[in-house]
Amino acid sequence: MSTPYTRLDKNQAAVLLVDHQTGLLSLVRDIEPDRFKNNVLALADLAKYFELPTILTTSFESGPNGPLVPELKELFPDAPYIARPGQINAWDNEDFLAAVKATGRKQLIIAGVVTEVCVAFPALSAIEAGFEVFVVTDASGTFNEVTRHSAWDRMSSAGAQLMTWFGVACELHRDWRNDIEGLGALFANHIPDYRNLINSYTTLTAGK
Amino acid sequence: MSTPYTRLDKNQAAVLLVDHQTGLLSLVRDIEPDRFKNNVLALADLAKYFELPTILTTSFESGPNGPLVPELKELFPDAPYIARPGQINAWDNEDFLAAVKATGRKQLIIAGVVTEVCVAFPALSAIEAGFEVFVVTDASGTFNEVTRHSAWDRMSSAGAQLMTWFGVACELHRDWRNDIEGLGALFANHIPDYRNLINSYTTLTAGK
Amino acid sequence: MSTPYTRLDKNQAAVLLVDHQTGLLSLVRDIEPDRFKNNVLALADLAKYFELPTILTTSFESGPNGPLVPELKELFPDAPYIARPGQINAWDNEDFLAAVKATGRKQLIIAGVVTEVCVAFPALSAIEAGFEVFVVTDASGTFNEVTRHSAWDRMSSAGAQLMTWFGVACELHRDWRNDIEGLGALFANHIPDYRNLINSYTTLTAGK
Amino acid sequence: MSTPYTRLDKNQAAVLLVDHQTGLLSLVRDIEPDRFKNNVLALADLAKYFELPTILTTSFESGPNGPLVPELKELFPDAPYIARPGQINAWDNEDFLAAVKATGRKQLIIAGVVTEVCVAFPALSAIEAGFEVFVVTDASGTFNEVTRHSAWDRMSSAGAQLMTWFGVACELHRDWRNDIEGLGALFANHIPDYRNLINSYTTLTAGK
Amino acid sequence: MSTPYTRLDKNQAAVLLVDHQTGLLSLVRDIEPDRFKNNVLALADLAKYFELPTILTTSFESGPNGPLVPELKELFPDAPYIARPGQINAWDNEDFLAAVKATGRKQLIIAGVVTEVCVAFPALSAIEAGFEVFVVTDASGTFNEVTRHSAWDRMSSAGAQLMTWFGVACELHRDWRNDIEGLGALFANHIPDYRNLINSYTTLTAGK
Amino acid sequence: MSTPYTRLDKNQAAVLLVDHQTGLLSLVRDIEPDRFKNNVLALADLAKYFELPTILTTSFESGPNGPLVPELKELFPDAPYIARPGQINAWDNEDFLAAVKATGRKQLIIAGVVTEVCVAFPALSAIEAGFEVFVVTDASGTFNEVTRHSAWDRMSSAGAQLMTWFGVACELHRDWRNDIEGLGALFANHIPDYRNLINSYTTLTAGK
Amino acid sequence: MSTPYTRLDKNQAAVLLVDHQTGLLSLVRDIEPDRFKNNVLALADLAKYFELPTILTTSFESGPNGPLVPELKELFPDAPYIARPGQINAWDNEDFLAAVKATGRKQLIIAGVVTEVCVAFPALSAIEAGFEVFVVTDASGTFNEVTRHSAWDRMSSAGAQLMTWFGVACELHRDWRNDIEGLGALFANHIPDYRNLINSYTTLTAGK
Amino acid sequence: MSTPYTRLDKNQAAVLLVDHQTGLLSLVRDIEPDRFKNNVLALADLAKYFELPTILTTSFESGPNGPLVPELKELFPDAPYIARPGQINAWDNEDFLAAVKATGRKQLIIAGVVTEVCVAFPALSAIEAGFEVFVVTDASGTFNEVTRHSAWDRMSSAGAQLMTWFGVACELHRDWRNDIEGLGALFANHIPDYRNLINSYTTLTAGK
Repeated sequence: MSTPYTRLDKNQAAVLLVDHQTGLLSLVRDIEPDRFKNNVLALADLAKYFELPTILTTSFESGPNGPLVPELKELFPDAPYIARPGQINAWDNEDFLAAVKATGRKQLIIAGVVTEVCVAFPALSAIEAGFEVFVVTDASGTFNEVTRHSAWDRMSSAGAQLMTWFGVACELHRDWRNDIEGLGALFANHIPDYRNLINSYTTLTAGK
Repeated sequence: MSTPYTRLDKNQAAVLLVDHQTGLLSLVRDIEPDRFKNNVLALADLAKYFELPTILTTSFESGPNGPLVPELKELFPDAPYIARPGQINAWDNEDFLAAVKATGRKQLIIAGVVTEVCVAFPALSAIEAGFEVFVVTDASGTFNEVTRHSAWDRMSSAGAQLMTWFGVACELHRDWRNDIEGLGALFANHIPDYRNLINSYTTLTAGK
Repeated sequence: MSTPYTRLDKNQAAVLLVDHQTGLLSLVRDIEPDRFKNNVLALADLAKYFELPTILTTSFESGPNGPLVPELKELFPDAPYIARPGQINAWDNEDFLAAVKATGRKQLIIAGVVTEVCVAFPALSAIEAGFEVFVVTDASGTFNEVTRHSAWDRMSSAGAQLMTWFGVACELHRDWRNDIEGLGALFANHIPDYRNLINSYTTLTAGK
Repeated sequence: MSTPYTRLDKNQAAVLLVDHQTGLLSLVRDIEPDRFKNNVLALADLAKYFELPTILTTSFESGPNGPLVPELKELFPDAPYIARPGQINAWDNEDFLAAVKATGRKQLIIAGVVTEVCVAFPALSAIEAGFEVFVVTDASGTFNEVTRHSAWDRMSSAGAQLMTWFGVACELHRDWRNDIEGLGALFANHIPDYRNLINSYTTLTAGK
Repeated sequence: MSTPYTRLDKNQAAVLLVDHQTGLLSLVRDIEPDRFKNNVLALADLAKYFELPTILTTSFESGPNGPLVPELKELFPDAPYIARPGQINAWDNEDFLAAVKATGRKQLIIAGVVTEVCVAFPALSAIEAGFEVFVVTDASGTFNEVTRHSAWDRMSSAGAQLMTWFGVACELHRDWRNDIEGLGALFANHIPDYRNLINSYTTLTAGK
Repeated sequence: MSTPYTRLDKNQAAVLLVDHQTGLLSLVRDIEPDRFKNNVLALADLAKYFELPTILTTSFESGPNGPLVPELKELFPDAPYIARPGQINAWDNEDFLAAVKATGRKQLIIAGVVTEVCVAFPALSAIEAGFEVFVVTDASGTFNEVTRHSAWDRMSSAGAQLMTWFGVACELHRDWRNDIEGLGALFANHIPDYRNLINSYTTLTAGK
Repeated sequence: MSTPYTRLDKNQAAVLLVDHQTGLLSLVRDIEPDRFKNNVLALADLAKYFELPTILTTSFESGPNGPLVPELKELFPDAPYIARPGQINAWDNEDFLAAVKATGRKQLIIAGVVTEVCVAFPALSAIEAGFEVFVVTDASGTFNEVTRHSAWDRMSSAGAQLMTWFGVACELHRDWRNDIEGLGALFANHIPDYRNLINSYTTLTAGK
Repeated sequence: MSTPYTRLDKNQAAVLLVDHQTGLLSLVRDIEPDRFKNNVLALADLAKYFELPTILTTSFESGPNGPLVPELKELFPDAPYIARPGQINAWDNEDFLAAVKATGRKQLIIAGVVTEVCVAFPALSAIEAGFEVFVVTDASGTFNEVTRHSAWDRMSSAGAQLMTWFGVACELHRDWRNDIEGLGALFANHIPDYRNLINSYTTLTAGK
């Protein structure tokens, strides 16, 4: 087996959100905007929910790339926030690297814009540095399906595990009994079909 | 010209929301769930924003079809709410018809689930009854693209105008100067790309 | 309005099933086989359920086109069955035409294989002869999307109403109160998502 | 009904093949090359089979547009062949128009490259001149689906009937008994699935 | 025929370019950015080439919608340029309407962003006002295929002719002999496949 | 070779059906419902046909996730049925693990809803525990193609073999002579195209 | 590198054509029929052209699966032809295996219907037996994209090299100078775009 | 990890552009022409910008394959230019191989037409020869998605890293501070969405 199973552990994992900036988001065309916005916020919410150390970073936010999307800033007011002065690969930025190491975590959950650069570069560097890397494919976006496929292939071949925000949440939670309502609320807020199931259920069993 | 231009007028239009129920929504597969949820709520928000008379109706909500999605109930607490006892075509329900007529409006903006039944049937009946009908295609959902295409073709051939929530909002508003902030907020809440534009703009011009 | 609304009436409608033969079905590539099989059987089941006069016809069934699919034969053992000796347009066959006229119905619900020939030709002839024609698009199949689109456009331009089996069933039924269980069973048998809704509902309300 | 049914009649129809040139064919990207080549040759074969007057025309074949595809030249050695000196709309060329009129036919079956120009222009002109026009959509090609849809919509709105080569062949033939083997061979040569049906049938019934 | 053929005439046509602004362009997701940019510039180039009166208009260009794309400004330095203070439908702006009328043209070629609003609204108003309207579908963009289809259907039903920039250029030019090199250059600059044809041709015939 | 060929053996294989529940099925949008229902039942039928030990498990079936689809319950009335009280990864449930071990099989055929969680988690755990894992991709469903691709990549990289129900059946059967009619019936019931072939064949050779 | 480059050598390679039967071909829906037919015949033609030992095999050709497509029989009248009495994996058939070994070749080029069974099973067995395996993906067909992807992943993970007929031809030929006309004819016969290039070239340089 | 991360270094990398010829480009149908032209020129521009040794090669450019696209010739007037007399795999050509070795670079960035031959063959040979290979997937084109996927899988399995031109540019640049304006201009010229961001930004901050 080329990439053995490494299981996400909420005590071992940290989240890196890379360059979700208002300008750069206009470049994302491999995923529909409503869905992408939802996926990014779902990932942020689960990072919060599982109290994972989270690091925010941006590239040139005073220029055309634009500021970090405000929702992320608001969700993580105390998180390390590294506005990189120029390094394209966040891993090349000493402050970012220091922030990653300061978490003491060895599992890195990474998402960002655009996939083949802002996600792939630090993901590949982190693997090289001995971290276990989990790429959140549906909270990462890029120009089109060709760029996406190339980025996924490169990261997967190097040993990254491709996951989605829902899989990450489930693998971290392990057992619904740890908190049914909390996880249920997370899902209801970010999966319309699940919200519908819950609403139908609640109504039907209301007087039961 | 087979269907002459009839322009939406906020003093002439009413909104009919037909069968957006938590169970029935699981049948909708011609549009991605995140986008569909957003479109339906955008239509509801614009109905509220333009203070259009709005009518809610459901089919068998105590059965498998499930209850109306709670967000719609909350947005329109005082709207006529017709839980139809059996009529599949809402237009066949006397209370619904009375509610429509009570609005005094001649332009009907219709959306619902599923397109070829819950939308098409009252749309066709309303045209026959002399109303001007505007179908909100992106806030209406159905099983797949074949059913959608058939429904659109049938309604268009009968004289319905196919629109989307964004087009409806723009045609009703006429001029940004009527209220820049209100319409801007509506768009920012329901169009992620537009929200990004506004966030970039606001940041860049912050100290200007 | 180029094609005014004509509403299906179970006392006015007949069903024509044209050339659903085991060989010809291998030509159908504009719709996935599991779905297509289901749609055709759903249309047959609703014809049975609403007791609509139904006419079966085939083209050269002793040759490569193959026999009528056995399920249809079994469902309508007493229906007029016209094995056409050569006419490509079923309407050109005197026995078929006589069978249609013998129903005394003026609304014709047509489906078949392939759409642009076996469906479109009799549909266009029937319109010319003064019948109201309803094409069941999702129970009709053909080579690809180009042939489908051309056939739909030609029929729609000539005044046919494009519908799907679900829309036909709903328009014929008019009111759930006419028979909840019967229509519910029809839908549960042919719409997996609806079956799931009913199963969830039944279980949840079992002890209620 | 906006476009009433006009039935193709082999004694009333002529075929116009417009600008199927080796260079221009590299522009066709709305249909896969193997399929497109087959469709064009199928249309040519049926024109031959039904002995329809056929007119060939090209645009600047000594330049980058390239020569007419040799297969068409070989199939119709005696057909009127109008190498237009510059007119983009073939209908503007007097020789072409004269050739059309010389056929004495009132039904024109048109295909060509590219759809929105070489097909649509003469099709629209022919309708204006009182001819009945049948566009063979799958033997006409263009840049992409947007250009195709626009061309189809413009022609359909003006009264052209959209068909495909298979529909044309069937409508012209009327009855298999006119010649089973001839039409069967035509289909076997141009529809791989049909060829398979015939081969299975022939083998299975070989010793019968 | 519901929409009779009206042929573009370079002495009767004017071009309206509506809201191709750098911010709004980030909303366009029904067409790939490289292709869309090329189509818009091709339309602009042909307007220039045929010396068609051209009118530019924008909506709120000092806000998030952003400025007109600079290439268009540079191509038409002397064209009427109406920065609308708020009217969403350009036709509602008196200066715009005056500019249109000042052209003395009765055929209006319209493209813009987004299709269902900035294009459809003035297109529908222009038809109502008696103009002949030609929508350039591939130089107009919007959110997705549902919005696009709805906009096209509404405009087509009202009598607009859907075209693409290539069709517009060909219909205006009428005959290659009017200027082979000019039109050839226009095509070579905007159709990579055509450029390749020309380059192959030129090389092969270089020493001939 | 990163994952060497391991051949399914009907004496070594067991089937795990994970969370095919009526509520959760509404989340499945990467595969059309008619096809998915058919695939799941085909896998169940082949498990039955080959008398493979089969284990059923569900997650929270008294809540919104809904009950196991009744067809599976009926097919395997005596199979181990583990209604997990909370473990998301079925492998974490001791009863489930005991049931797997009790089969004495080392080859596990796994399918479920949703792919990246209910299938991927136990698949990855089973590989880690030394089992040979075969994922039935077409009897497993999830939210969309991005989640599916990520799940497939993660499982494949860890050494799971991706198969489909048809491949599983064929690899288990080895030789048609083991039972032509049984396997033929299985295929006829779940592959409409195959059913057609058999019906054509049977009819054609009926009197032979 | 998990699968090192092994270069096809015309003195080391043999071709296995597995179950291209007229009935089974109706199951192929992951590739359009015109293209698939062309690809299979192109592979056959190149096997002939390079004088590669070629082995034909079928499964139950007297039953519904139907006979081998006649074109293949005619092309290889003297090739080993193994009509398997029941083995699903051709590698399990002793005659087939003997025929493979009799070629003395260590590189096997495999194509067939359906991909995940008739191609994948012998491909995997051959790799296990020490052969170098090259799967011709575009001359192999199956039910849909899910089955195809699974089959490709399984074979690729086991060390098969995925190729297409064009790549196979080019890798075998090595140098155009070995025979320009022969390879050119092969391409012209199976690649319409290439045929157009050659026709344009020949015409343009005719009098040069 | 099967393919460890190897980071592109502008002092270690060379660019190989293989067979981007005007005739061969008509074979490319897996990527839209406007986008493909842009990608190829973007790769060329970045090679120039980073002053990477660049090698051009063509196959039979005096025949139907046509000349190298002129833009590439003009950009690299002094680059080694190997018009191969017949070798299909450029690596088999001694001059080409000598030119590669003369660069003294160990990282090869390869793009060409068609992917599975002109790109894959030298890429696989280069890996075998010990070079680090980076395939630019979006500047390489081929017949369709099946050929593309096969080529990508073969190259990735052999250890090539799949990248796109944008990823290559970013990985080579490392830090925006090395030259903001140069890289910004490169992106603005080849990414319309990025150009829009810059234009919006420049306008908004003009007077700041």
